[in-house]
Amino acid sequence: MSLHPFTQAKDYEIRLAAKLVKDAYPASANVHFVQIDRCDPPKKSMIDYITAEREGLPTPKIPRVLYCYYYTNTFDFHKALVNVTAGHVITKVKQPKGVVGPNLPDDMMELEEYCNKHPAVLAEVEKLKLPKGYTIRNDPWIYATDDPNEKRPLIQCFMYVLAGNGHSESNHYSLPLKFSPVFEAFTKKFIRMDYLPGGFDETTTPTGPWQEVPCREYHPDLNGETVARDVKPLLISQPEGPSFTVKDGKVKWQGWEFRVAPTCREGFAVYDGWFKGRQVFYRISLSEMTVPYGDPRKPYHRKQAFDLGDCGFGSYGNRLNLGCDCLGVIKYMDGHSIHANGEPITIPNTVCMHEQDDGLLYKHVNYRTLNAVVARKRIFIVQTIATVANYEYIINLKFVSDGSIDIETRATGILSTMPIDENVKVPWGTIVAPNCMAAYHQHILSFRIDPAVDGHKNTVVFDDTKKLPKDKDLNPFGIGFVTDRHFVEKAGYVDQSPFTNRTYKIINENIINPVSKTPVGYKINMPARQMLLADKDSFNTKRATYATQQVWVTKYRDHELYAAGEFTNQSQKDTGVGVWANGVDNVRNEDCVVWATLGFTHIPRVEDFPVMPVETHNIQLAPFNFFDRNPALDIPQANNSFNKSILVEGEGDDACCKTKI
Amino acid sequence: MSLHPFTQAKDYEIRLAAKLVKDAYPASANVHFVQIDRCDPPKKSMIDYITAEREGLPTPKIPRVLYCYYYTNTFDFHKALVNVTAGHVITKVKQPKGVVGPNLPDDMMELEEYCNKHPAVLAEVEKLKLPKGYTIRNDPWIYATDDPNEKRPLIQCFMYVLAGNGHSESNHYSLPLKFSPVFEAFTKKFIRMDYLPGGFDETTTPTGPWQEVPCREYHPDLNGETVARDVKPLLISQPEGPSFTVKDGKVKWQGWEFRVAPTCREGFAVYDGWFKGRQVFYRISLSEMTVPYGDPRKPYHRKQAFDLGDCGFGSYGNRLNLGCDCLGVIKYMDGHSIHANGEPITIPNTVCMHEQDDGLLYKHVNYRTLNAVVARKRIFIVQTIATVANYEYIINLKFVSDGSIDIETRATGILSTMPIDENVKVPWGTIVAPNCMAAYHQHILSFRIDPAVDGHKNTVVFDDTKKLPKDKDLNPFGIGFVTDRHFVEKAGYVDQSPFTNRTYKIINENIINPVSKTPVGYKINMPARQMLLADKDSFNTKRATYATQQVWVTKYRDHELYAAGEFTNQSQKDTGVGVWANGVDNVRNEDCVVWATLGFTHIPRVEDFPVMPVETHNIQLAPFNFFDRNPALDIPQANNSFNKSILVEGEGDDACCKTKI
Repeated sequence: MSLHPFTQAKDYEIRLAAKLVKDAYPASANVHFVQIDRCDPPKKSMIDYITAEREGLPTPKIPRVLYCYYYTNTFDFHKALVNVTAGHVITKVKQPKGVVGPNLPDDMMELEEYCNKHPAVLAEVEKLKLPKGYTIRNDPWIYATDDPNEKRPLIQCFMYVLAGNGHSESNHYSLPLKFSPVFEAFTKKFIRMDYLPGGFDETTTPTGPWQEVPCREYHPDLNGETVARDVKPLLISQPEGPSFTVKDGKVKWQGWEFRVAPTCREGFAVYDGWFKGRQVFYRISLSEMTVPYGDPRKPYHRKQAFDLGDCGFGSYGNRLNLGCDCLGVIKYMDGHSIHANGEPITIPNTVCMHEQDDGLLYKHVNYRTLNAVVARKRIFIVQTIATVANYEYIINLKFVSDGSIDIETRATGILSTMPIDENVKVPWGTIVAPNCMAAYHQHILSFRIDPAVDGHKNTVVFDDTKKLPKDKDLNPFGIGFVTDRHFVEKAGYVDQSPFTNRTYKIINENIINPVSKTPVGYKINMPARQMLLADKDSFNTKRATYATQQVWVTKYRDHELYAAGEFTNQSQKDTGVGVWANGVDNVRNEDCVVWATLGFTHIPRVEDFPVMPVETHNIQLAPFNFFDRNPALDIPQANNSFNKSILVEGEGDDACCKTKI
Repeated sequence: MSLHPFTQAKDYEIRLAAKLVKDAYPASANVHFVQIDRCDPPKKSMIDYITAEREGLPTPKIPRVLYCYYYTNTFDFHKALVNVTAGHVITKVKQPKGVVGPNLPDDMMELEEYCNKHPAVLAEVEKLKLPKGYTIRNDPWIYATDDPNEKRPLIQCFMYVLAGNGHSESNHYSLPLKFSPVFEAFTKKFIRMDYLPGGFDETTTPTGPWQEVPCREYHPDLNGETVARDVKPLLISQPEGPSFTVKDGKVKWQGWEFRVAPTCREGFAVYDGWFKGRQVFYRISLSEMTVPYGDPRKPYHRKQAFDLGDCGFGSYGNRLNLGCDCLGVIKYMDGHSIHANGEPITIPNTVCMHEQDDGLLYKHVNYRTLNAVVARKRIFIVQTIATVANYEYIINLKFVSDGSIDIETRATGILSTMPIDENVKVPWGTIVAPNCMAAYHQHILSFRIDPAVDGHKNTVVFDDTKKLPKDKDLNPFGIGFVTDRHFVEKAGYVDQSPFTNRTYKIINENIINPVSKTPVGYKINMPARQMLLADKDSFNTKRATYATQQVWVTKYRDHELYAAGEFTNQSQKDTGVGVWANGVDNVRNEDCVVWATLGFTHIPRVEDFPVMPVETHNIQLAPFNFFDRNPALDIPQANNSFNKSILVEGEGDDACCKTKI
């Protein structure tokens, strides 16, 4: 049986694509892959496919196409498209000089080891006169951009002391050093040594003996906690099995149907979502995240990561563990990364799926009879976690039994730290451990929502709630309020406006709700957030136009998937939403795409170190005059013969009686 | 053993207070109680008490004092304070004419029945020519305010058709009628019949035959859902018992210690909170919620409820059911209401407490070794649910194992509906069922946070994150940003400012965090929201000044507990925060109180009817440079020998292998 067009890339497809690309070059070109994954099929064909599939008709043949990013002759970066159904290279395009591909984990690891042994680094280490047993570690960082003439692929290594406890999990982030070498990627050529300031300004000092300070450890072997908290097990079980099925990535659960596909860049995408037989979306995924830092001092001014475009949430995805990252009855999907030779690496269990109880979904008590109607809120979570060097990001798509979707991001992991001298404070960072500062930074995520609200011709509107003017006939007491609707006609952005209760909706103007007599739709609940703080003419802003606004609407075009553009590593400008939101394309009653930006300005707390309790942020999609009533009335009523909860023991007779109430 | 000063009012105390008050009047005065509950003890004494208690020293004697609200001679409204430890009335004060006490559930039920039989109502019903089996129902509503000269306690009854299915749970809210009688409370004197408009303006028509439309039902017996969803059980068990203990309202859980006391007005309050031996708060509770409607037409212009002050979240609290409102291993506490004669009514299980797993609290993977450190987020929920006529409100105080507190509100229940003629649309409401409109409205809740961050002298500050001006030496690339701190010096409010990432903190300027070298504190994460939409000079605004701003700070004074003042029913003005936030009191490094206002403008969706999926809103309190590191490092690492999760069955060999990864 042929693969579904939305099924993730298979290892044999990756191998075939890599082989076809390699065969197109002489061996001397040294083809060096950095990412290979499936392209989305053309939407036009997929609409036919989905229609046929839902009607049980034969589906059209759609070739599977993979993209390959690779270098040849060390410096030439290419993108090839490979038809792995027919077995041929469609195109291979050498990218302009200065376009840098995403980092390959293998390459980063190799450079990391190389750096630690480089004579220039060893010379500095020598001057540290580290105590016995102490060594060094480094985190290779994307170099980012501060010079339009810099075209080389570069890596900056941030250096740390590794405490002398001999434990592999010692927290080097607690002990940052003041020198930072820059290397050329691939050639590993040493470019220069940057020195980091320890005071308020950019002044640096030559490397001298390291001043020993305690290392703030996070690992339980080392963190100094001698008494573990007494936490009793809380078990989640589904004795009759889960309420969902997952087959080849196709999920069916509580009226929801959609497909999940892990991807190298995004972690995963969900496709072709329907609730109770009604089409809701074509594709939803995280599309980019930029993390700019606010410390203005050289070389920190370049700290601006694009975690998807520069690295890849899938390539850097976690292997999730049962009873650890996910509780209950779990279904996993594997992701993949590759080696430089194009050989796929399976990342087992990188996506987990399970059900969860989330409190009450609805309740009403008739006070006359005390009869209650109560339904529990059940959610189905699709989760992935990526480790991008120091930080962890948890992406949860939570499908809810009432037709809503909660897009949740949890940031955790370890702060990126900088050295700071004793008795110095800086206004752009928090001291989180002795001589260790965590600079203020932002995480600005773009979720790409490709809606299909009862079909593909959709319109984005925003409704403001406004006072009704005082009027002696209509509003004599000055208490009236109404909503004002605005239509997004052209590709562009919409300002946030929490104080007018601005609510964004994706509606289908062609289908009218028979009850409300208004177009059917889904609303987007977006919390108002501070967007990119960098100056308008800074590289940070030029590279991430998407991060300047929270709500963008563009016209759908195949392959326009990533908010800051396809190639972000050392980019000079945003080639994504910044280009596509052109003010020209008609987006009303068209196939349009919403880019929902969620930002959080992270002012680190001491409590965020040495490992950070989750910062959680949400965007909600919910049916809005889409159904003709609450679509969750068919949920069985909550009761204890089903839920089998118990009272705390030792409550005595009094409490026992209460179970009968 | 004497009762702890924070322990809720006991039934014998209520009986004693009622008796002492009744004994102070001749029988002919007909003392008619509407609310009796415990007063908070004076804080000055309680600070001594808490100090002694924590040091294991003898605690000072603090008399228990109850307040009684009651009417005498039908119309005279009084408040008495009764020392139930010594057994005497401290004061009894007749309130000025026009001050109306909260409604007593018994009184509302009695009036409801009376209304349905009143000749003026029956005359209108006659004209409806209802189909056989159809009857009527009414919801008595608080009358609110549109006339400064109106001093009588009044009730407005909204009338509905009860469908002829003979089922007690038929949804009358789906079939609103166009007449609405007004009665005087207590005397039940018929005041007048209001007629409700069915078109766009205020035009009303004489009652005529009722036009039959289908009733949108929510009860499973009636809602027309013939196929119940296939939901498999999801069981939450704690085979070794819960991790918490609750004794006489004193909770100990995961480093947290605090007391819970159900109250008539607020549902419950939590007192004297400590985390890991550090004092965090003195008292937290919901303090008021006003619900103004935006339909400007008479008599809807008066629809403004104060659900705490007019009714009482405790008096109207739900009896919570095991495995229904709360899953897992549950501890309950009872609340109380009273009869008019002062006899207490126990409301069993009105507060439930239990643990919950809430996903990951923190994670870090060392990419070099793939070793992961993972802790699950465990929360302890204190939940209550109140039914105020049509609406249900769920208040969850979620204590988190990292020292943070999430204050969660979930609104559910049934929309308050109005009649609407066919083919009419109005700009202030949504048609949610045939001939049935739900007007736009707001829910504006004030949570009173009485902090004690390392002691009682606290300061409220707010930090804005701002660009650092471009500067060729310090910020040449224009990417720097810093925070600006502002101190709240005088009692007043602070504007919301999400685009500057404004963050509110309660700090203790007298105690410096040794790591960050800044004052210890807790931050308040407040989502920016639209506040009260009514005109500044409207009764809606005059009565609820607190609802015009999100963050208020006042100086602590005993008995200043309720945001809109003590007596809100038919009030003419806010006698709470609107008075106390006087711009005069010093609040910096003083015993101060924060009033956090959470508002949501509710534009009803068709999906919100006939019963509304929860609208969830949160305020978070989190330690901010309070501890010297992440205070949750002592949580045992997550693992499956503890959590006992399993794979979905039938996954085959491939999946089984994965359990070993």
